[in-house]
Amino acid sequence: MTPLSIDKVLEQVKRQVRAIKAYTLAPLEAPIKLNQNENPFGMPAEIRDEVLARLARCDWARYPDFVPARLLAQLADYTGWVPEGVMAGNGSNEMIQSVIQATIEPGKRVVLPEPTFSVYRQVISVAGGEICSVPLTDDLQFDLPALRSAIGSLRPAMTIVCAPNNPTGSTLTRAELAILLEEAAPGLVVVDQAYLEIGGEDAVPLLPDHPNLVILRTFSKAMAMGGLRVGYCLADPALIREFNKAKMPYSLNVFSMIAAEVALERRDLLAPLVEAMAAEKDRLATELASIPGVHPYPSVANFLLVEVPLPPGDLFARLHERGILVRDLSQSPLLSRHLRISVGTPAENRLLLAALREIILGKGEAA
Amino acid sequence: MTPLSIDKVLEQVKRQVRAIKAYTLAPLEAPIKLNQNENPFGMPAEIRDEVLARLARCDWARYPDFVPARLLAQLADYTGWVPEGVMAGNGSNEMIQSVIQATIEPGKRVVLPEPTFSVYRQVISVAGGEICSVPLTDDLQFDLPALRSAIGSLRPAMTIVCAPNNPTGSTLTRAELAILLEEAAPGLVVVDQAYLEIGGEDAVPLLPDHPNLVILRTFSKAMAMGGLRVGYCLADPALIREFNKAKMPYSLNVFSMIAAEVALERRDLLAPLVEAMAAEKDRLATELASIPGVHPYPSVANFLLVEVPLPPGDLFARLHERGILVRDLSQSPLLSRHLRISVGTPAENRLLLAALREIILGKGEAA
Repeated sequence: MTPLSIDKVLEQVKRQVRAIKAYTLAPLEAPIKLNQNENPFGMPAEIRDEVLARLARCDWARYPDFVPARLLAQLADYTGWVPEGVMAGNGSNEMIQSVIQATIEPGKRVVLPEPTFSVYRQVISVAGGEICSVPLTDDLQFDLPALRSAIGSLRPAMTIVCAPNNPTGSTLTRAELAILLEEAAPGLVVVDQAYLEIGGEDAVPLLPDHPNLVILRTFSKAMAMGGLRVGYCLADPALIREFNKAKMPYSLNVFSMIAAEVALERRDLLAPLVEAMAAEKDRLATELASIPGVHPYPSVANFLLVEVPLPPGDLFARLHERGILVRDLSQSPLLSRHLRISVGTPAENRLLLAALREIILGKGEAA
Repeated sequence: MTPLSIDKVLEQVKRQVRAIKAYTLAPLEAPIKLNQNENPFGMPAEIRDEVLARLARCDWARYPDFVPARLLAQLADYTGWVPEGVMAGNGSNEMIQSVIQATIEPGKRVVLPEPTFSVYRQVISVAGGEICSVPLTDDLQFDLPALRSAIGSLRPAMTIVCAPNNPTGSTLTRAELAILLEEAAPGLVVVDQAYLEIGGEDAVPLLPDHPNLVILRTFSKAMAMGGLRVGYCLADPALIREFNKAKMPYSLNVFSMIAAEVALERRDLLAPLVEAMAAEKDRLATELASIPGVHPYPSVANFLLVEVPLPPGDLFARLHERGILVRDLSQSPLLSRHLRISVGTPAENRLLLAALREIILGKGEAA
């Protein structure tokens, strides 16, 4: 028998999956991590201690509850929506995947403003959907007229809006979202509000009158749980029922579920950190703007999109040599001269600014 | 403007998803839980303590590593396969989903022996694949000739074999798997070995010569981590690269990743529990067989499929009244008179046997 070649086996993989470039992220490390928009202050010790105490008391060998009813009730209370209209799972990534897998198949269109969070393009491609990209404006804002016109002519099954948008920090107001919801109906409008605790207008008040609205949120940013992977989805209960069929059962592990519960119970401890992030962002933006050739864009999130006067790849590398990781966006459309910098702690931001001044102005190189 | 009705919105959901019956599991509780094939002894205290100590030292706000390189190396060592041929994530459920989403789309066939683990049917349906069900034999074994003939005539993109099979406890030998792999080539053969630590033949030695083999394994059963959701997939590195494109990045949270690392480092502590499970299973099977009308099937896993002399739904309810949860399978094809009973601790098994004798023989009802 002729041995079976791996090339023949790979032909079993979907064409559109094979076309996706394998996403490899070099495992770069650095003491100052300003590349993933995390909460730089970390989880408050009081919350950590309570989580560890609860973990020590529960039986890890037992499956989680089929429905994390307690967490869903807490999320309903936190967001002002109904518990039957909440789904929670393994990061907002799993929410994105479930929503798209439940609705998108070959022949269906998705309107996607770009540049935006790259997971959307990946998941839509795997599902076989047709991506209709609508570029942001030259100043990297949502192009509302272009979006309306694309929706009106293409009648997409889904429109995706990250509000605030990653990596630009720009957003849409609630009134603007309402316009898109009406234009897109009965097509779904997915509004990703991963950064809502930091800024932007809450879309929840639009839910009662817009059953085509799907809101995604996360514990990975302001809530200081990037490592724990908890995300949630808010929508009409009938839609949530369908999305749950495309979501894996038991996808929220016991550890992360407990951490999310404690974080919501003690969100009074997280609020000051979120305020500090917002204040630091303003301070960092002002300081960055004072460096010649450096132009931060207005941002309602905990990161800044920054146009820089050196090739971004070089600047990225020189910051990394100094122990600082940022995100080089120069391979993205419209962003050939841009970096994305997460807002760090005051000390981290000072070190970043000093490093940037040194590299760009040549100051202190000899020191 | 006419308000948008939710019915119009639901038309955006895929037809095959709407056709899936919403899987609702009544949140039944009971002190004795013999319904999910968990490790009844729980995670050893020494492992728990070490996990909690490591959790206390890490920063929960930071995303996990993009590739959990340390865990993948440990899994390679544990299974005897290459690290580049290992993918790990959020339970074997996520592995199932990634493998199927990477390969199955409308027009592709999947051969599925049934009854088996129900998540397969759900995920294939969401992906739009065509399920070609091959029933088990009357004595609930794999029907190898029927499987070969279905594969030969249908040329499926994928064939799925749970070995050991859930809920029957039957399995295929490595030699039988090799026959299917050759028959199915270049179609994929997914071999789900969730229960391998307890019994059945390891399929890993087939990997080098069969690039169409995909093995799925889990920490949820013998490894006592059902609540933590860690599963992994072993296959040719080129296939793993494709599956990773359909898997969400960062899907393995830091907590569960650390627990998996410690469990592998200290698997000497888990081995005696696995031996105890196997011994208890044999004892339980013998005792069950001594009750008139009760017929346990041979099982290489940590559960027993049992034919019972009362309607399974009634027996389930009467056990539940006595604080014991088992799985009623009577809605599954071929299993109208069957329950599935996980092997518990010696004390749990004694209570189960006493309750069954009491209900079936009427003994001790007055006590």
